[in-house]
Amino acid sequence: MEEGATASALVVDNKKVVFKGYIEGAPKETDMELRIENIELKAPKGCGAFLVKNLYLSCDPYMRGRMRDFHGSYIPPYVPGQPIQGFGVSKVVDSDIPEFKVGDLVSLITGWEEYSLISQPQQLRRIQQHEHDVPLSYYLGLLGMPGFTAYAGFYEVCSPKKGDYVFVSAAAGAVGQLVGQFAKSHGCYVVGTAGSAQKVDLLKNKLGFDEAFNYKEVANLDAALKRYFPEGIDIYFDNVGGEMLDAALVNMRVHGRIAVCGMVSLHSLVDGRGIHNLYNVVGKRIRIQGFLQSDYLDLYPRFLEHVMSWYKEGKIVYIEDVSEGLENAAAAFVGLFSGRNVGKQVVSLCGPGPDPSII
Amino acid sequence: MEEGATASALVVDNKKVVFKGYIEGAPKETDMELRIENIELKAPKGCGAFLVKNLYLSCDPYMRGRMRDFHGSYIPPYVPGQPIQGFGVSKVVDSDIPEFKVGDLVSLITGWEEYSLISQPQQLRRIQQHEHDVPLSYYLGLLGMPGFTAYAGFYEVCSPKKGDYVFVSAAAGAVGQLVGQFAKSHGCYVVGTAGSAQKVDLLKNKLGFDEAFNYKEVANLDAALKRYFPEGIDIYFDNVGGEMLDAALVNMRVHGRIAVCGMVSLHSLVDGRGIHNLYNVVGKRIRIQGFLQSDYLDLYPRFLEHVMSWYKEGKIVYIEDVSEGLENAAAAFVGLFSGRNVGKQVVSLCGPGPDPSII
Repeated sequence: MEEGATASALVVDNKKVVFKGYIEGAPKETDMELRIENIELKAPKGCGAFLVKNLYLSCDPYMRGRMRDFHGSYIPPYVPGQPIQGFGVSKVVDSDIPEFKVGDLVSLITGWEEYSLISQPQQLRRIQQHEHDVPLSYYLGLLGMPGFTAYAGFYEVCSPKKGDYVFVSAAAGAVGQLVGQFAKSHGCYVVGTAGSAQKVDLLKNKLGFDEAFNYKEVANLDAALKRYFPEGIDIYFDNVGGEMLDAALVNMRVHGRIAVCGMVSLHSLVDGRGIHNLYNVVGKRIRIQGFLQSDYLDLYPRFLEHVMSWYKEGKIVYIEDVSEGLENAAAAFVGLFSGRNVGKQVVSLCGPGPDPSII
Repeated sequence: MEEGATASALVVDNKKVVFKGYIEGAPKETDMELRIENIELKAPKGCGAFLVKNLYLSCDPYMRGRMRDFHGSYIPPYVPGQPIQGFGVSKVVDSDIPEFKVGDLVSLITGWEEYSLISQPQQLRRIQQHEHDVPLSYYLGLLGMPGFTAYAGFYEVCSPKKGDYVFVSAAAGAVGQLVGQFAKSHGCYVVGTAGSAQKVDLLKNKLGFDEAFNYKEVANLDAALKRYFPEGIDIYFDNVGGEMLDAALVNMRVHGRIAVCGMVSLHSLVDGRGIHNLYNVVGKRIRIQGFLQSDYLDLYPRFLEHVMSWYKEGKIVYIEDVSEGLENAAAAFVGLFSGRNVGKQVVSLCGPGPDPSII
């Protein structure tokens, strides 16, 4: 209904998902609430800001960290009463800066709301959309932070070699599905784990993993890894931490590498269960490397070129799980922590109709 | 009494410390026993072996790993009923191979006994002893495996930079005392921890650490590290694992490095308490690298040249704890695990008298 607003009326409704207050355990839908405020569809002159209509919002596990009252992290916590923030794909509807004009498409950190006034853009990138290009939402996954995490993590952190035995957890997720495909095309043997039969099927039959298993159906993770990796694991791409990391540590080969980009299994700041097999790092000379994609941003252009062409050549595929509307955004985010999503979780604010990039 | 044996009698007593059987927890003196057997002071012709008189034996924490019935490690377990094995400095008393002659001094893996017949030498190195050189026993510490562990670990694993904040555990031990001195001469700020007031005094007043503290007198390791490292830790050289590693993880700086060469705090193969703060590796992009000096042996000649000259120039010192006689060897080894030793623990089999290198 707001589509015509810029022309006819300056003030419109702005639906938003507001953060209610700090949490300790796993996020719940009730930690967020839907609110409707008004917004003037104008970037005030002289403010150096621009106004965007948000088209797609990204649900990423790291966002849970911003729901905690913990200021020692690489990213500050959310502000209670303010909208959730995260990566988005948006369209400029008014602009006070010459670099961005009405109609420009961008990816950036935006608010979980219909319209956001962006005065201090973070991780802002212009999207050059051409015919036959990837879907816009892929700028939150394949071509966005998760895709770049997979790329930087696999190629820069894991020191992969042809023939390496590679294990990927959360393998059907936004990052894992790409790590597995990168590893396969690098000549590695790749096994993934995920939490449902549907995901295991996708890993084996759509994403090209050599093997895959449902960790929820395995009585003993250590024994399962020994079955899938009788020679041991060279590279473990760890998206989950916890028990899976502990089991992998026992099964690593000498000089194995563990890249850690998230510990989605940890529901609070303290890992109650603990990691018990870390002693393996000495005898096996294991390297455990935590990393964030933001340390590798100089590689982003190369990544974009590589991955875009691999995708167009059909060498890689990307699976998305799209929820519709801000009404379903909180549930979509919360679902990440029980593994409800299949593939990269995105929230579309476009509604039905033609591709918003050509509106 | 055996000194003249090679000339007058071919068969002499050979006192030895025998490994009784596999253990689970920390080693006890009763896990070993003294035994006297006979030995012919001759390397049988055609066997390609040589016979050594052992002068100094090394007590090292890794040896506990060989007391466990665990065959998946980088080094096989001891054989019950056979002597303990470890690094030693020895003198050739008979030889069936041309490369080593009677009177040659060597460091090698030898038996905890007076004489050993060496048929398949491991880690064998000739010692070129000159006037004013270092004491022979230093080939088990400063110039041996622990010294090289400190050298390879600090320079090759820790990626040190001038001005880095460096934390060393077991800092008065065989490895730690050198890591601290290397770090100081590299322009780092160095804090060490050890388990007694005497050791803390040595760290501060003899080994040149900027600060040192007795971890046994600290109620909260995390708080102690925050006091000594208000800016956080760039490099943690971990000799102990366990609670100290957990506390260090919380206090690491972004892009911090943790070099792990041993986990002396673990008394069994499974870490019952567990590591609870590993989640820090992601946000802080921490690298945890297990290593063994044996992977860096191509650097040994450079190490020997560097460390020998630094020692002769008075730039580094080395503290040894010497026990006398095989009768005290088991107690000396067991003492490692309660921190009884001050500095590198060595067992001398030389008895009183002149330097054995000139006998």
